[in-house]
Amino acid sequence: MNIHDKVLLGHGSGGKLSHDLISALFVKYFDNEFLRKQTDSAILSLDSTRISFTTDSFVVDPIFFPGGDIGKLAVCGTVNDLAVSGAQPLYLSAGFIIEEGLPYQDLEKIVSSMAAEAKKAGVFIVTGDTKVVNRGKCDKIFINTAGIGLINGENVHIGEGSRIKPGDLIIINGTVGDHGMAVLSARQDLNIRSEINSDCASLNGMISQIMEVSEGVRFMRDATRGGLTTVLAELAEKRDFGVTLDESAIQVRPQVRAFCELLGFDPLYVANEGKVVIIAAADKAPRILALLKQHDFGKEAAIIGEITPDHTGKAWIKTRIGGKRILDMLAGEQLPRIC
Amino acid sequence: MNIHDKVLLGHGSGGKLSHDLISALFVKYFDNEFLRKQTDSAILSLDSTRISFTTDSFVVDPIFFPGGDIGKLAVCGTVNDLAVSGAQPLYLSAGFIIEEGLPYQDLEKIVSSMAAEAKKAGVFIVTGDTKVVNRGKCDKIFINTAGIGLINGENVHIGEGSRIKPGDLIIINGTVGDHGMAVLSARQDLNIRSEINSDCASLNGMISQIMEVSEGVRFMRDATRGGLTTVLAELAEKRDFGVTLDESAIQVRPQVRAFCELLGFDPLYVANEGKVVIIAAADKAPRILALLKQHDFGKEAAIIGEITPDHTGKAWIKTRIGGKRILDMLAGEQLPRIC
Repeated sequence: MNIHDKVLLGHGSGGKLSHDLISALFVKYFDNEFLRKQTDSAILSLDSTRISFTTDSFVVDPIFFPGGDIGKLAVCGTVNDLAVSGAQPLYLSAGFIIEEGLPYQDLEKIVSSMAAEAKKAGVFIVTGDTKVVNRGKCDKIFINTAGIGLINGENVHIGEGSRIKPGDLIIINGTVGDHGMAVLSARQDLNIRSEINSDCASLNGMISQIMEVSEGVRFMRDATRGGLTTVLAELAEKRDFGVTLDESAIQVRPQVRAFCELLGFDPLYVANEGKVVIIAAADKAPRILALLKQHDFGKEAAIIGEITPDHTGKAWIKTRIGGKRILDMLAGEQLPRIC
Repeated sequence: MNIHDKVLLGHGSGGKLSHDLISALFVKYFDNEFLRKQTDSAILSLDSTRISFTTDSFVVDPIFFPGGDIGKLAVCGTVNDLAVSGAQPLYLSAGFIIEEGLPYQDLEKIVSSMAAEAKKAGVFIVTGDTKVVNRGKCDKIFINTAGIGLINGENVHIGEGSRIKPGDLIIINGTVGDHGMAVLSARQDLNIRSEINSDCASLNGMISQIMEVSEGVRFMRDATRGGLTTVLAELAEKRDFGVTLDESAIQVRPQVRAFCELLGFDPLYVANEGKVVIIAAADKAPRILALLKQHDFGKEAAIIGEITPDHTGKAWIKTRIGGKRILDMLAGEQLPRIC
């Protein structure tokens, strides 16, 4: 990035520009062995205890949307980042930046929603901070949650992908694109009524069940900003394997698909908040799929692709009509403030 | 708080309104044994390891000010919260919310300042997140840092104040009001030139030295938003001891005092970012004072008051002119966006 440049919306997209900014700036300056791994959570040792540590800020607009609100999202997002790192999420912090004049009722609704979701996920919100800025200096409310989870030594590489091998299968626990389209449909300026609900959910319960067969789970990542595609394009980058997805196996709700077509979005790039991509050893994949399907958040789980020895460093998709195209990371900003 | 009310700037002041909001809302909904202590850092057990966990969001305006910037502040603030909890600060997270259009040069300056301060403090920034919001939806940049420190079992109650006894002495490591007035002097709308520098500094090195006599250190707290007074008023609240400060022992730089007088501020309420209030056993206080004075950030350390058996639950100050007045928590918002 040129120093005369300005920060663009795309730098917050979770896609290619975010990726570049992180490498060019944050990793460069903060450089250390933990950050260099560029996983969503850092795995740290404290005495003999291994913990996972992560943070996310939430700026979703609007703050209330079908299937959730910024508070629920802030809890689920951080719980999921911990869970996919192989940790048991335990403790969250909550930092609020509030615009002067926010109705107290809205704040209470958000806080009570966070409390309910924390209870559901079995985590404690143990520390916090509140700042209020003058009217017009932020947009209603922004929430940061950081989280700590306890990690079992065996699972310490689950978020890195270093154990992935050609022949492994790619699993996702359901439909894609729900969260992004639910939030977008709730934006006043669009004035669209849809029946799309966000898939926003804490997945740690489901993930802990599949970790029972953890020697078969090679990698996990939640498919948030940038969608399913960005997870897999990032994963393949600079690796000695390729990724092939099968479009016909990836489920998209009809309303989500219709809404995406209307607005020109590709659902594979749209944010999810309750979807985990699992890469599993081929012989363990059926058992993992069966465990997922037993869970409320995994009823529509499916095997959607595989790790290949060829096309190294790239992610490809076999399209419905029989073609094949490369999957790139999200290049600009598709949907600002989706989380 | 009435549900028809709105969030006011004062709810972010660190004073009485913040205190009320935390009790009425956050502690009510998130209720758990950790949060209930209402300390700045939560003390957590992970297996047999005790850690301290804290978070702060920084919204300071302007983002560059004499003696620091929002990045340095975000590192120092969280390092200090961990250090005063009796922990050795180890790992930080960094969550950025950036306004579209922020010059990349400014972002790089901030990030490099965070990196330099983290190095100085001996902590690693191990995980992060970046969100970008549309122009006008935040003000340049907000930064959240959460932090983890390792706590020595003996120091586990240092941030609670449960060991404070009448006769204990109150120590501070230097002048008060520098940070608040430095930031205020840098605001364009005031158009004031001053030579006041923020005292923004990571105090963990100095604090670890005084922890060598830790059986004498009964309590520590950094005097940030709400200033020295708010720390002591909060501390005395609902306790069976009183606090008496000696105004003539509290040092205020002449420029800070003059600037405060000009604008009608009381320096005892103005934010510091490099000041720690230490309550020490009377027989250990001279040794602690001597240790502080050996350190760059403690050269002007002084004993400024004592814990008394009378006036229980209240903080008083003996004024320069021989009177005595009660010290209340900051009631509204004195200086929005000071940190």
